[in-house]
Order: sequence, then C-alpha cells, then structure tokens
Amino acid sequence: MAGSQTNWGVLLELTGPGPKHEQLARALRKVVRGLEDGVAVPPSRQLAADLGCSRWVVTQAYAQLVAEGYLAGRTGAATRVRRVGGAVTAKQPVRAAAPRYDLAPGLPDLRHFPRQRWADAVRGVLTTAPHTDFGLPDRAGHPRLRRVLADYLRRVRGADPGDVVICGGVTDGVSRVCHALRETGVTRLAVEDPGWTRLRRVAAGAGLTVEPVPVDDEGIQVSRIPAGARAVLVTPAHQFPTGTVLSPRRRAELLDWARDGDGLILEDDYDAEFRYDRRPVGTVQGTDPARVALFGSVSKTLSPALGLGWVVLPPQWTVSGHAPPVVDQLALAGFVDSGGYDRHLRAARLRYRTRRDRLVEALGPARLSGVAAGLHLVLHLDRNAAAVVRAAREKGVKVTDLDDYRATPGEPALVLGYGNLADNAVETAARLLREAAG
Amino acid sequence: MAGSQTNWGVLLELTGPGPKHEQLARALRKVVRGLEDGVAVPPSRQLAADLGCSRWVVTQAYAQLVAEGYLAGRTGAATRVRRVGGAVTAKQPVRAAAPRYDLAPGLPDLRHFPRQRWADAVRGVLTTAPHTDFGLPDRAGHPRLRRVLADYLRRVRGADPGDVVICGGVTDGVSRVCHALRETGVTRLAVEDPGWTRLRRVAAGAGLTVEPVPVDDEGIQVSRIPAGARAVLVTPAHQFPTGTVLSPRRRAELLDWARDGDGLILEDDYDAEFRYDRRPVGTVQGTDPARVALFGSVSKTLSPALGLGWVVLPPQWTVSGHAPPVVDQLALAGFVDSGGYDRHLRAARLRYRTRRDRLVEALGPARLSGVAAGLHLVLHLDRNAAAVVRAAREKGVKVTDLDDYRATPGEPALVLGYGNLADNAVETAARLLREAAG
Repeated sequence: MAGSQTNWGVLLELTGPGPKHEQLARALRKVVRGLEDGVAVPPSRQLAADLGCSRWVVTQAYAQLVAEGYLAGRTGAATRVRRVGGAVTAKQPVRAAAPRYDLAPGLPDLRHFPRQRWADAVRGVLTTAPHTDFGLPDRAGHPRLRRVLADYLRRVRGADPGDVVICGGVTDGVSRVCHALRETGVTRLAVEDPGWTRLRRVAAGAGLTVEPVPVDDEGIQVSRIPAGARAVLVTPAHQFPTGTVLSPRRRAELLDWARDGDGLILEDDYDAEFRYDRRPVGTVQGTDPARVALFGSVSKTLSPALGLGWVVLPPQWTVSGHAPPVVDQLALAGFVDSGGYDRHLRAARLRYRTRRDRLVEALGPARLSGVAAGLHLVLHLDRNAAAVVRAAREKGVKVTDLDDYRATPGEPALVLGYGNLADNAVETAARLLREAAG
Repeated sequence: MAGSQTNWGVLLELTGPGPKHEQLARALRKVVRGLEDGVAVPPSRQLAADLGCSRWVVTQAYAQLVAEGYLAGRTGAATRVRRVGGAVTAKQPVRAAAPRYDLAPGLPDLRHFPRQRWADAVRGVLTTAPHTDFGLPDRAGHPRLRRVLADYLRRVRGADPGDVVICGGVTDGVSRVCHALRETGVTRLAVEDPGWTRLRRVAAGAGLTVEPVPVDDEGIQVSRIPAGARAVLVTPAHQFPTGTVLSPRRRAELLDWARDGDGLILEDDYDAEFRYDRRPVGTVQGTDPARVALFGSVSKTLSPALGLGWVVLPPQWTVSGHAPPVVDQLALAGFVDSGGYDRHLRAARLRYRTRRDRLVEALGPARLSGVAAGLHLVLHLDRNAAAVVRAAREKGVKVTDLDDYRATPGEPALVLGYGNLADNAVETAARLLREAAG
C-alpha cells in the first residue's frame, strides 16, 4: 500500500462533520491503519500542497494522531507510522516469529494460568446453573458476578461500588465510558503522558480529542490538565509505564479538580494486585464514588484471553455495550467466591516478586525506576533507545522504547515487562539486554 | 421519572451537531431510556410549544424514534415508550416475574443446551491449548475458529467466506459494520419493516438513520428502498418476524440494487439452521461476496449466553471491536470440528419441527403464516392485538404484538416463539392463548 513515495493527497478524502483538520485526522487514521510500522508520512508542507490546504491543518492532524499513538514524532526526523495491533481486517493475520525472550509489557505469566481450576469452575457452572441462565444475557452482566465483584472491590481495593457493570476488559470499559462522555457533549479527554497507547486510541475512536498531561515522580501533574477538559484517565495505583504511585497530595488535587469543574476521573486500577513492598493504596474511587469511574479486569491477573473486566460507574451514569459470555462470568464468580482467585493472586505475587528481584540483580548497576510493584520496570539508557530495541531484537530479546508510550519523545529508556518471562530465562535475557544496551 | 405530566421541554436539551430534529431525537433517546414501557410522550403540538420549535421538528424526531423502536405509534392513540432491554444502567436490574408460558421469540430451547459436551469442549481447550493462546487475543478472532467457521459456512450455508471475523453475536457484528459504514460517510440504513427492533437500535446507535422498507410475502420490497440509501439490512433465509423466505426474483433484484448503486447488503442469516420442509436456501453472500456482509451466531442454535458470532466481510472492509474470550472461541472450534455441532443441530431440528407441528395443531383453525422453519410463527387476529397480549399475560402466557416490530402499525397479529417452550407445555399454552384471543 501507500508509502512515502505515494501522492497522499489522492488517498485522503476530506469529508464528514467538523473542521478540516478533524476531517484530515479521520482520513489519515484510515490510511495509517493499512501501513507497516515505521513508514514515514509526508512532510506537512508537502501534504498541505497536495491537498490544497494550509500547513496548519496538516500539523494539527499529525499532532492529534501522535497523541493517539497512530504516529510517532521524533525530533529532527520524519513522522512515522506506529503499529499497535491495529484494526480488524478481513485478512488472516500474519504473525511475526515470536521473540525468544519477550519482555513486552502487559502480560501475566501465561504458563501459570490455572487451567485445571478454571476448567473446574466452568464445569461447576454448566452443572449447576438454572437453564434460564442460558437465556438472553443481562447487558450489564450477570447479577451474581456483579455482586461478587462488588464485595471483592470493597474488601480488597477499598472501593465503594454502588454497582458494578461487567465488560470485556479495561479497553472495552474505557471505550464505553468515552462514548457516554461524548454523548453528554464532552469532547476532550486528558490522559497521562506517557501512558497506555491503546486507551488513547479507543478514546479517539469514541470521538474524543486526547490531551496528554505530563507525569512526574508523583504521578500526573494535575495542575497541567487543560482548562476545559471535563474528564481525565489515570492509573493511580501503579502508573503505566513510569511505575510511580499517585502521591497523596496529587490524589487530593485530582479530586478537587473533579469537584470544582464537574469533572469525571477515569481510574484504571492498573496492576493494583501486585504490590511487593507494602499493601497497595486503595482506589481513588473509594474516596469519591460520585466523581470516579473505576476500571479493572483479570487480564493481568489471569489472562487477557478470558476477556473479563468491570466498570464501577458513578450513580446516574449509563453505558451501552454487551457483557461477556455468561458462562465465563459465572465461572469467575465461582472462582472468586471459592477463594481460588485470592489463592492464585498470592502465589502470583510471590512469583513476580522473586522474578523482579532476580531481574533487577541480573541487570546489574543499571538505572532502574518504578516502585516494587506490577509486572514491569523502566530501564534508563545513555544512548538512543530505538537503537537498543533493535540491537536487543537481533539477540532475540523484545523490549519496548518508552517513547512508544509518549506523546512527545523524552529521555531514552526502555519498558521491561517481566510478567510473562519464563523463570529460567531471566538471567540470559538480562545479559543479552545489557550487551545490546552497552 | 418523567411521565406525560412532566414539562418535557425542561428535560430535553437540544445541543450537539446536526439539524434540530436530530438534536431532539438524541435528547429524546436519553430521556426515553429512563422510562417505563407504555409511558405516553407528549403530543407533538404540546412539545413543540414547550421547546419553542416547529411541530415538524417534533414529528420528525418521533418518527425517527418509532423507526428505531424506542417509541410505538398506534393510530388514533398517544405515542408511547417501548422497552426492549435498553441501556446498561448502574442499577441492579429488577427482573419481572417470569411468565409461566414464555413465547417471546428469539430463544432456543435452553433446557437442551448441551451442558456436558460444552464442558468437555472447554476442558479440551484448557488441557491442550499452548500457553501462548492465553496471551493477547487476536482482535479478529482466533485463527483456528475463523478457519473452522469458514469451512462450516462454505459447506452448510453455501457462503463464500474469503475470511471470517469473530464477534459477540449478530447484534455486535451489525453494530460494528454500521460504525464502519458511518465512517465511510454512509448516513442511512434501509431495514425490513417489520423487523428485529434491536438491530435498528444498534444502527441508530452508530449514527445511521434507519429507513423502514415494507416486506411482503416475497420478502423485502427492493423497489421501495429509498433512493440514496447505500446499505440495507435483510433476513433472506427466514424473515423475522413474517417468516417469509426472500424469493429468487427479489434476491436478484437485491443484488442488482447493490451492484448498480455501489450498495452493501447486510445479510442476517436468521434461523437458517432450522428449515423443516426442505433444504434451506443458500446465503446471498455466496452469490456476490463483494456486495454482502454476512452475519451469524450460535445464539439461536446453542445459547445467547455464549456470546459467539461471526461476520464475513467483503474484501477491503475492516471493522473494529474485540473478539469474545479465546477459550470459548476454541471450545466452539472443537465442538464444530468434532461433529458435535452438526449432531446438536440435527437433534434440535427434529425437536423444533415436532413442537411446531404440535403447536399448529393445538392452535386449531387459527390463521397462521410463515414457512415451516425457524423458532417462531405469526398468528393473525380478528381483534386488537395489544388487548390479546394483555389477556394472555393475565393467563400466564407471554406473546408479542407484531406491531412491536413494525415502524407503522398494521393488521393485528402476534409473533409466537416456540423455541424455548417446554414440550409438555405446548397444548396448555395454545389453549390459554386461544381463550385470550377468542
């Protein structure tokens, strides 16, 4: 398909509602979805000439797509396409050969998925559920799982769940709330920078303009949320990817921001189950349920393949969408209710903590950051991160450039996910990575 | 909440993009979602006065919501709210007491869900799948299920699936394609009248204007698709709810319509598995895969609680959204591959055919219509259908007014779904219904 040699003006049809730069952003998203990672988009001056529009229109559209993670801008270099999974096409997917040592963040240990106990939970549902449970599902989720999760979130996460809606995961939940925000007339969503690219994309997909707000070692800089933004997406328990915890001062500022400006806080309870040094902080939602939508899932505790998540909504809010399959919902309810989930989390916590300690030790005198929590850490570099990513890849180690999660490039660093790294691979992966970074 | 005594003008905020009647339709949808079934909306003249707009704006907005199934218009009576499941609210759902004899259409026999064999299929997946299958799911669906379903659709439905995308069911699939249509600039979707209300709603939810097209005993009247409509949603195998099959002449007209006007046919392969008098007709998709998006699911063959469906897209089309849980996908792949699905369908076909014959006999000399297929039939009445629905309800029998699926009221008739009617209840339910209708 289109590369940088193509006349992009021909590919881009400016139609539909909104000002010209929004039309262009929409058209660009469609074209970019069909392109390979790293393809350069035309210089703004050239595209403006091709389209017969002002250069400002093009730079605005590019900036929007960079904020959404479709494009990556590097200082002094061409703006390039960034692939992150992307749209569902009618083509059978072509899978790249799996790297030998995969340190991509966002996965739990797939080797330790509790296969036997999950099969037992499913069989339990299929043996005991009344036949009416196989009928038209409740769109908000099965009442039993909603109740079980409300209890769990109250007990473990200090949440105050008036009610819980079951969804397919955090991405699905955030997408639904973004659509609901758009329906009420909200047009902008403030997000952490750096932050999870996929969530910025679903916000953009719901028609919201994404506004990156810088994160420092206390978490999001609340004072820098743009005036007029009525919603903000945050990861207070364990910021992704910097690994900081939202400080008490900032928590208070964030709640004040929401109360003063009638704002909504979207709280992604990222990695909250895995704190190794102390008890995890409770949710912001528990402090002011009227101002916070809380999101969680089992994607990083059990498996993303289960597609089970939840949203706790403030009273009066409604979202649309459909709940995951009822059998899976009831299996999770049974797994939590029986104590199986708690046991699984305890074993996982121990496993990840040990693995993290070994990885930190094996990386030697490297500059690392992030609190002792979760499934990833940040490795700071003295040289260009993209080059280290490539060198590591050649040695069979997959790591991620922190810039991939930034709206604007910053200090060179890598994000290392150790959730799905095999225990017997930690030392070798660390040695290869040190060689690549050296 | 608001009833007909309220000053609706206060509740309705006209904002956002588009002309005034679209703003009003948007505002009305939100208010109506919070109302009980049967609540009357204000007369158009009164609401126009409250809002300070023309009466034309109000009648346009009401007509749109009637087409979408949010409101029901009856000749010579107030326009009223119609509830069909509705939005997901943060409240725990209040379930009405289940009727003794439930003839609501759209459900298979939940008593015969193959519990044991499904549990075996799930355990098979959990025992044998490689651990990588528990990782980030493929958004278009697991390659194995996509392959198995492509073979199945080719073999059983005469389809020509270049490729298959897995989704959560027909509603989810239609919603995704409607969003994709909207993105390409399509603004209107022609639908069968009468037809499935929920699908009209998801089309409206994707921002499309729904245009009802009358159905006669040959199926949709293709010549009455409005000029300028670029997409049409049809049920060729077994029209819901009239029970007709799209005639060969109309199939040809429909394909000509799509080819001449660069149109897309959305083919809901409704009830195609259950034809009792002859082999079911093949899909329209098999005739021209470039012009048809084909939708199917296991909701009416196994259970809607499984949340498993598929879309076959024309080449070049993409949709967004996430696939159902991988474990369920692989369980279905195993169930189809092992021949278990075919065996289940054969047994179900025999069971429904016998039940249908018994119901027809027990209804006596009633005027029935619909070919010998599927899980429902139409009972024509000599008196007001709404009164018969109420009288039946008092006797513990739930049936549906055909008007509930019509954009404009028509001849009095009921839709009787027998898919989930217990075998030992057929004669009693029929007798009570005859008494109610008498």
